[in-house]
Amino acid sequence: MQTLRVELGSRAYPIYIGSGLIARPELLAPFIRGGRAAVVTNATVAPLYLERLTTGLRASGIDLFGIVLPDGEAYKNWETLNAVYDRLLEAHCDRQATLIALGGGVIGDLAGFAAATYQRGVPLIQVPTTLLAQVDSSVGGKTAINHPRGKNMIGSFHQPLAVLADVDTLATLPERELRAGLAEVIKHGLIRDLGFFEWIEANIARLLARDPEALIHAVRRSCEIKAEIVAIDERETGARALLNLGHTFGHAIETAKGYGVWLHGEAVAAGMAMAADLSRRLGSLSAEDAGRVAALLERAGLPVAVSGIAAPRFIELMSVDKKAAAGRIRFVLLDRIGSAVLRGDVPQDALQSTLGAMD
Amino acid sequence: MQTLRVELGSRAYPIYIGSGLIARPELLAPFIRGGRAAVVTNATVAPLYLERLTTGLRASGIDLFGIVLPDGEAYKNWETLNAVYDRLLEAHCDRQATLIALGGGVIGDLAGFAAATYQRGVPLIQVPTTLLAQVDSSVGGKTAINHPRGKNMIGSFHQPLAVLADVDTLATLPERELRAGLAEVIKHGLIRDLGFFEWIEANIARLLARDPEALIHAVRRSCEIKAEIVAIDERETGARALLNLGHTFGHAIETAKGYGVWLHGEAVAAGMAMAADLSRRLGSLSAEDAGRVAALLERAGLPVAVSGIAAPRFIELMSVDKKAAAGRIRFVLLDRIGSAVLRGDVPQDALQSTLGAMD
Repeated sequence: MQTLRVELGSRAYPIYIGSGLIARPELLAPFIRGGRAAVVTNATVAPLYLERLTTGLRASGIDLFGIVLPDGEAYKNWETLNAVYDRLLEAHCDRQATLIALGGGVIGDLAGFAAATYQRGVPLIQVPTTLLAQVDSSVGGKTAINHPRGKNMIGSFHQPLAVLADVDTLATLPERELRAGLAEVIKHGLIRDLGFFEWIEANIARLLARDPEALIHAVRRSCEIKAEIVAIDERETGARALLNLGHTFGHAIETAKGYGVWLHGEAVAAGMAMAADLSRRLGSLSAEDAGRVAALLERAGLPVAVSGIAAPRFIELMSVDKKAAAGRIRFVLLDRIGSAVLRGDVPQDALQSTLGAMD
Repeated sequence: MQTLRVELGSRAYPIYIGSGLIARPELLAPFIRGGRAAVVTNATVAPLYLERLTTGLRASGIDLFGIVLPDGEAYKNWETLNAVYDRLLEAHCDRQATLIALGGGVIGDLAGFAAATYQRGVPLIQVPTTLLAQVDSSVGGKTAINHPRGKNMIGSFHQPLAVLADVDTLATLPERELRAGLAEVIKHGLIRDLGFFEWIEANIARLLARDPEALIHAVRRSCEIKAEIVAIDERETGARALLNLGHTFGHAIETAKGYGVWLHGEAVAAGMAMAADLSRRLGSLSAEDAGRVAALLERAGLPVAVSGIAAPRFIELMSVDKKAAAGRIRFVLLDRIGSAVLRGDVPQDALQSTLGAMD
């Protein structure tokens, strides 16, 4: 097992990464201080991992119950959140009750937001079971639900007490979700670490074959990079925006296609290819490097373009994105592989060319 | 004008207290950094103060729009909150947009929670227009909405950038709401400052007559006391619980009677009289002091008892209260006027006697 510490002062927390961790209650029990916890999970994950997680914790004397939600991004909304509140209130949970999010990014975001807001905040533990959640949404304290007008529009920052990333759970992950998770792994290399990007290029076959050792390294290095950035900028006022490489385009794709039609990682992959293309048009990234970005995404089985969204609609969707500063769209661009930069002054014609090239 | 600073490290903020402040845009303009703000208010307050607040700010070049909600505690719910999100999204507000809460405690709590959660948090300014909101809900960063199963069950902590408490707005406050606000003023004396309690005893007639000088002193000293306690304990893990004197009983009264039937301050007044009675029964408060507490509340025109709630129902309602620790009810009690203490080991018979005496 590897342990990584996210340094956030009084809100610092550990990430445990390894194999066989879900069945080790001694890792999480010390964080469940009130002796009571609700495991928020979904109907797909519950039959696979809920009992494995809870058996040992119950044996440690922790009073646990499960809240099993329907599976899917379409349920990351107020109604499902309210169902969680209802269950917590029915069970007379007070502020000492801990929420454990067992599932992918949707569960992590929704259970995290429930923990952030139930009785003005209760303790949270994240047990991400998808590659995307392990490398991305379980690190950094972002929580959210969707709004019909935009993804993740309602949310807050709420740091977990601990994160447990067990790569064994990736064995049951659908192929498409594994690939979507790799998009975020590649993103971490792109924005901050050429060496890691090169390691992914060399090990993409092992990752797709779900080699545990390769997965542990990919999760660990991704979490390290994200943790470094989050420690610098917990509330996303500066450096943290670089983690949104591909996301301004990506969120627009997700909204245009309808939540859940494209997976988040797929939309981010196409968005990163578009960001690389835009970076090349603006002269900050070489054509060779832009090609290398697209090639790795394609080897990972990820989309590098999107069709069927007219440029004006694309721009409209991007301009309500949270990353828009005072009405102007800000983009995360690459100046080389391993280094990203935030730009708010992208010329309209370059943007139009990138959007046009995708169609 | 008096300025009080709430010391919360990087989240420290000023409270401006005085007369004629709403029409002074230079006080708030420096805090509206994005140049754009939405004023969240209600249909009662808007005709009285919205224009007075916005005219000067608009002249300072700030782009403002109003979000006028229906008035009343019954609207402090998800539907109204969602209406605020909708308006912010329609207006393409991004994370730089500031929310200004103009109104009483309901508006402050709801707009505060909207600011805490819209796009994971936007800047907030509080302009409380009731005595209750000026002395209580605008200080300390608590935000919330109600849930059918309990008051303030969903919420978060979100500190404002500034609070502007203009006692001129109290001139239009209904008599009953003025009195309800005095309950919290009296509470601040009770929990921490005998001298202030004695000042209220000597000046209750001036306060009820809305003498601006007396109101400014009452607001200032209340905010000072609350700010001292909040600075020690921002997240309500210790000392801050003392601010809940009367609230464990009070919230149960509000829930039993139905939201908005009793005003919050009225329920807290009866709850403080009950807490004083319970303190006397446990031997921590003298009978003379318990009588003095009830006498001042009565002079302020406030209830000191409640009928029609059976003891088992009362206890049930209190045990789902947020202040309940691991299923046990914790009470804030008085050991003398000016000093409160938190107790989790109240004997059932004393509690039953206090509840029985009220019926």
